[in-house]
Amino acid sequence: MVVNMINKLVSKIKKTNAPIVVGLDPMMDYIPEHITKKAFAELGETLEGAGEAIWQYNKGIIDATYDLIPAVKPQIAMYEQFGIEGMIAFKKTVDYAKEKDLVIIGDIKRGDIGSTSAAYATGHLGKVRVGSKTYTAFNEDFATVNPYLGTDGVKPFIDICKEEKKGLFILVKTSNPSSGEFQDRIIDDRPLYEWVGEKVAEWGADHMGDDYSYIGAVVGATYPEMGKVLRKVMPKSYILVPGYGAQGGKGADLVHFFNEDGLGAIVNSSRGIIAAYKQDEYAGFGGLNYADASRQAVIDMTADISSAL
Amino acid sequence: MVVNMINKLVSKIKKTNAPIVVGLDPMMDYIPEHITKKAFAELGETLEGAGEAIWQYNKGIIDATYDLIPAVKPQIAMYEQFGIEGMIAFKKTVDYAKEKDLVIIGDIKRGDIGSTSAAYATGHLGKVRVGSKTYTAFNEDFATVNPYLGTDGVKPFIDICKEEKKGLFILVKTSNPSSGEFQDRIIDDRPLYEWVGEKVAEWGADHMGDDYSYIGAVVGATYPEMGKVLRKVMPKSYILVPGYGAQGGKGADLVHFFNEDGLGAIVNSSRGIIAAYKQDEYAGFGGLNYADASRQAVIDMTADISSAL
Repeated sequence: MVVNMINKLVSKIKKTNAPIVVGLDPMMDYIPEHITKKAFAELGETLEGAGEAIWQYNKGIIDATYDLIPAVKPQIAMYEQFGIEGMIAFKKTVDYAKEKDLVIIGDIKRGDIGSTSAAYATGHLGKVRVGSKTYTAFNEDFATVNPYLGTDGVKPFIDICKEEKKGLFILVKTSNPSSGEFQDRIIDDRPLYEWVGEKVAEWGADHMGDDYSYIGAVVGATYPEMGKVLRKVMPKSYILVPGYGAQGGKGADLVHFFNEDGLGAIVNSSRGIIAAYKQDEYAGFGGLNYADASRQAVIDMTADISSAL
Repeated sequence: MVVNMINKLVSKIKKTNAPIVVGLDPMMDYIPEHITKKAFAELGETLEGAGEAIWQYNKGIIDATYDLIPAVKPQIAMYEQFGIEGMIAFKKTVDYAKEKDLVIIGDIKRGDIGSTSAAYATGHLGKVRVGSKTYTAFNEDFATVNPYLGTDGVKPFIDICKEEKKGLFILVKTSNPSSGEFQDRIIDDRPLYEWVGEKVAEWGADHMGDDYSYIGAVVGATYPEMGKVLRKVMPKSYILVPGYGAQGGKGADLVHFFNEDGLGAIVNSSRGIIAAYKQDEYAGFGGLNYADASRQAVIDMTADISSAL
C-alpha cells in the first residue's frame, strides 16, 4: 500500500527527531573546487559540466545527511537556470533522494489557471499519459504552490495529491523582505495572508492524513508573530518554514510555528547547511570535506530547534 | 545593436496589423494522429516520443502562421509535464520561433524570493555563467511573472530585462473563474488587482522602450470592465490578454484593453488556434491540414479584433 506522504513526513520527523528539511539550492560558487574541476575536466565548462557538478555536490550532501533528516527541498530555479542539463541534475537529485527514502519537497512555486495547473501537477506529482502508457516526469512527493490565482488554480494540484497520496505547501506568508507589499494588506480588518491561510485550512480539512492535512502552508521564519497567528488559523496544516539561518530566522523564533504536540512545522535551511564549509564556524572542514560540514550543520540546527521547542 | 524587445513587439504588431499571440500549449489530444503515429513509430510511446510529437506539431503551426503574427507564447507547463523530454521540446520550439523572427513570450508564471527569482530570470531571459563561459538556457524574449512575493521577487526579473533588453508580463488580473478570490478583495477601497496594477505602472515607468514600457501586465479577456480600469492605471504598460476564445472572451470585450493609439494590448489564443481543426468551423481542413486550419483561425481572429477596435 502506498503511504500517504504527510504521514510519512510526520513519521520520519518523529524518528529523526529533526523537524528540518535541507534545501538543495546549489549555486555554482557553493560547489567545492574539487567537484567543479573534475566535472569540467570531463565535460568542459559547459551546461552539461555545470549539471554534473551540481549533481555530484548534491549527492555528497545527501550521502552525508540522509540518516539525520526527514526530507530535502530542491529549489528548481537553481537547476532551471542551467536549462535542460540543469533539469537533468534536478531529476537525478530527486531520484537519488528517493532511493535514500527521503521525502522530497519540490520547491517549484507553480500556479496557473486550472488546465495549466493540472499539467504542472501532472509533471511534478502525478503521472502523464503517452498513448497507452503512463510515466512519471519529475516525481517529487510535495510541491510548493502559489495561491494568487485562487481555488481553481490550486484545485488540480489537490486532486492529483489525493490520487497519488502526495501533498502541497501553499505560499501564505513568504520569508522575503517585501512579502508584506501585497500579503500584509488589510482586507476586512485582516491581512491578505490570513485570508489565504483560511483557504489553506479549508482546502486542508477535506484532505487529511492521520493527524495532519496533506495541504500545508509556507510561512517565513522571518515573521514569527505572523507565524503565531497562522498556526491557529491552520491548526491541521503542516507549515514549511523557510528563512532560518542565512535569511535571519533563529531557533527561538520558531517555537510558535509548532503545535503543542511538537509537530506541525518543518524548518528549511539551504545555504546554512549545503554551504556550511564556507562559514567561519565550519571552515575547519575545508572544501574537500564539505559534506561532513553539512552533516555537522544539520546536527547543530536540529539541536538549536530542539532547545527552542 | 540589440533591439529592445518591447519595441520589436510593437513594431511587429504594427507590421502584421495583428495584436495577437498564438499560445503554443500543446495537449496530446490536440495533436493530429499522423504526427503522433510517426513519432511513436520512431521513438515508441515514450516521453521522448511525446516530446517529438509536440515539437513536430508546433513546428507545423509556426510554419503556417509566422508571417501573420508578431509573437508566440509557449505555456511551459504543457512541456514540463513530460519531464526532460518535454523541456527539450519547449526549447526546440523557442529556438525555432526565434529563427522565424517571432517574439517569444515564455508563459512561465515564475516568482520567488530575490535570489531565486534571479535564477529563474537567468534561466529564461538571461545568461548563466559556467566557469569562464556564459550560456543562454531557455532564452525567451518575455516571461510572465507572479507578483505575490512583492517587489523583491520581481526586481531580479526587471534587472535582467534591463540588461538583456527583454521584458515581462506581470500577473495582475488572471482570466480564470476564481481569480477574484484574492485578486478582487478590497484594500482601502480598491481591489488588490488595482494595487498590483499600480505597482506594475511604477516598475514600468523606469523601464521604458520607445512608447511602451517593457514591464507589462496580464489581464484576462474574461474581465473587460476591470480591463478598462487597469488600462488607465497602467497607460504605458503593454497588456497581455489571455482568455479569448475557448475561455469565453470575445473581440468586442477587448476594445477597452487597448489605448487610443490602437496599441497597448496583445491578445492570446491557444486552443482556438492550435486545435482549430477540431472545431466545427474548421473541421473541413481535417487533421492532415491542421496547420492550415490554424492559419485560417489566425486570420479570422485578427479580423474579429480589428473589427472591434
